[in-house]
Amino acid sequence: MSYTNKSEETKNLTIENDKDVVHIDDIPQNHPTAEIINLSNIFNPPETSAIIILNQEFDITFKLFTKIWENYKLKICADGGANRLFEFLTKEQNITTSIDTVLVEKYLPNFIIGDLDSLKPEIADFYSRHKVKIIQQKTQYSSDLTKSLHLCYTYFLSLSSKDDPLDQIFQGDRSNNYGVELEKGIHTLFKKHMNQNNIFSRCQIVCINGIGGRFDQTIQSIHHLYDNYHCKNGELLFITKADIIFSIAGHDDGGCFLQYDSTFFQNCGSCGILPIGKPTTINLTKGLKWDVVNWDTDIGTGGSVSTSNYFVNDCGIYIDCKDDLIMSIEYNWS
Amino acid sequence: MSYTNKSEETKNLTIENDKDVVHIDDIPQNHPTAEIINLSNIFNPPETSAIIILNQEFDITFKLFTKIWENYKLKICADGGANRLFEFLTKEQNITTSIDTVLVEKYLPNFIIGDLDSLKPEIADFYSRHKVKIIQQKTQYSSDLTKSLHLCYTYFLSLSSKDDPLDQIFQGDRSNNYGVELEKGIHTLFKKHMNQNNIFSRCQIVCINGIGGRFDQTIQSIHHLYDNYHCKNGELLFITKADIIFSIAGHDDGGCFLQYDSTFFQNCGSCGILPIGKPTTINLTKGLKWDVVNWDTDIGTGGSVSTSNYFVNDCGIYIDCKDDLIMSIEYNWS
Repeated sequence: MSYTNKSEETKNLTIENDKDVVHIDDIPQNHPTAEIINLSNIFNPPETSAIIILNQEFDITFKLFTKIWENYKLKICADGGANRLFEFLTKEQNITTSIDTVLVEKYLPNFIIGDLDSLKPEIADFYSRHKVKIIQQKTQYSSDLTKSLHLCYTYFLSLSSKDDPLDQIFQGDRSNNYGVELEKGIHTLFKKHMNQNNIFSRCQIVCINGIGGRFDQTIQSIHHLYDNYHCKNGELLFITKADIIFSIAGHDDGGCFLQYDSTFFQNCGSCGILPIGKPTTINLTKGLKWDVVNWDTDIGTGGSVSTSNYFVNDCGIYIDCKDDLIMSIEYNWS
Repeated sequence: MSYTNKSEETKNLTIENDKDVVHIDDIPQNHPTAEIINLSNIFNPPETSAIIILNQEFDITFKLFTKIWENYKLKICADGGANRLFEFLTKEQNITTSIDTVLVEKYLPNFIIGDLDSLKPEIADFYSRHKVKIIQQKTQYSSDLTKSLHLCYTYFLSLSSKDDPLDQIFQGDRSNNYGVELEKGIHTLFKKHMNQNNIFSRCQIVCINGIGGRFDQTIQSIHHLYDNYHCKNGELLFITKADIIFSIAGHDDGGCFLQYDSTFFQNCGSCGILPIGKPTTINLTKGLKWDVVNWDTDIGTGGSVSTSNYFVNDCGIYIDCKDDLIMSIEYNWS
């Protein structure tokens, strides 16, 4: 089905395109481009890149996992995410007898962080023996994903250090929690580094197991896309076996151009522009099968939501929205 | 983790309970009970019950599938949901060699409905040969789930018929689309039956494959919980391998009492109270680990959402909210 918006009024506002070539220069001048997101960079991220593994069941394939792992710099397991990683790799080892490396020893994260109420003792022991830094942060006022994100940002902010920034920031061993105060030290460290050097380059963080497991955890993941300034406009991407999910920030002064190459275009399927959290207005889209102009979108009673839409332009689409929105893009990873 | 709300202000508004016995009589008089949802009835639904299978990958076990199938009256596949059913049963047949019945012939739906752009021809042929009614509805102004729901309601409204209501309403065969006008006849039929008999008893519909697959489809499923009067307060339940998801309607005149028995209580895990459509206020909860009073909840920037909460009362909880909310309850189906 190509169109699931629900009221006839809605459809009257949309423009059906079979082919609509869009370049940045084509955007009307009253809708300037405030942001450019390059979706072709998913497997070619900047130096400030990380993978965060959350504590829900793995749904991606081993092939996709290794492709992300090999391309992203910093590897963090959020608390019980370490159990999931260990069990995922063990299962893969058992089904693929031709592998002669020990996968759990090959794919070691840099950090495990969280309140550690979910991390299994035997898995903590394994990673501890393999020099993975396990940092406890007891506070219940922030989620394990926020703790992981602040660890990433602290690392990114210290990249200018001549030595390995990981060793510079996190000194000591597990007995002193790697020098991080036990309650909420990682948040204090992040604020300290932000104050010292309050501009840092665009980062790109891929989060797996964040969407598609327990539903309250899915919504908590989406909450992070809205709630953290550094998570917007594709700086935090949730990857599932079916799609890519990220936020597009609402701007007073223009929209967002999502740039992609022909490989990305060939592999992407349906997309959704999702006003999760509150109703808003999409001022303009260009390059979609069902483009809209000044279109109110609302998940609530009587509202309309653009799902099962798709890209018709082969190099990018433009979205100008009043408030932050969530974008999902179906993707064929194989 | 028991608590992932994010601001200290939030936690100050919550009341931590270790045990908080709640009965309907315990609810303060200024918060009357406007609705009662009996969660123990998941496998013991009323006569007006149905299962709808959507076109995303099955994530529930065969055991859970059969338990739902055997207890729910009407069985509907939404378009390509029929492919998923056929393939799920074929796979199960192949891995469980001890089964001597042909599963795809045992678990035949009553209907397949949709625009039929996803239904595979060979699967349409199979079901057609096995007397499944395949109804085409071409309109793109409503989703396949809405088409399925209107089919359910039309059936429920006709239950008072002395003969089999399915045969009364849907006369003819596939060559005349079972008497249903091709474009949007099911919506016309539903309206006609509603006008003839505009009260119908509480129904209970379980929808599988609606949440957890493609993310825009997940949000489209949630949209249905808000958008359809008959889908609220547990009348439409999405079931995943991890949880149960439904809506709780906001009321001006009181809250909702979610009743359950000890079996349900023992099997449920974490829960979430999720303001997916728009920010709102939870006036009062009773019986949760983290109860709240006059608590603003918002998925957006700076807001708080109650996730990883859980039931501490063993027979029910009370929620009084200003606007409709989505509730998710983790459930151990094994």
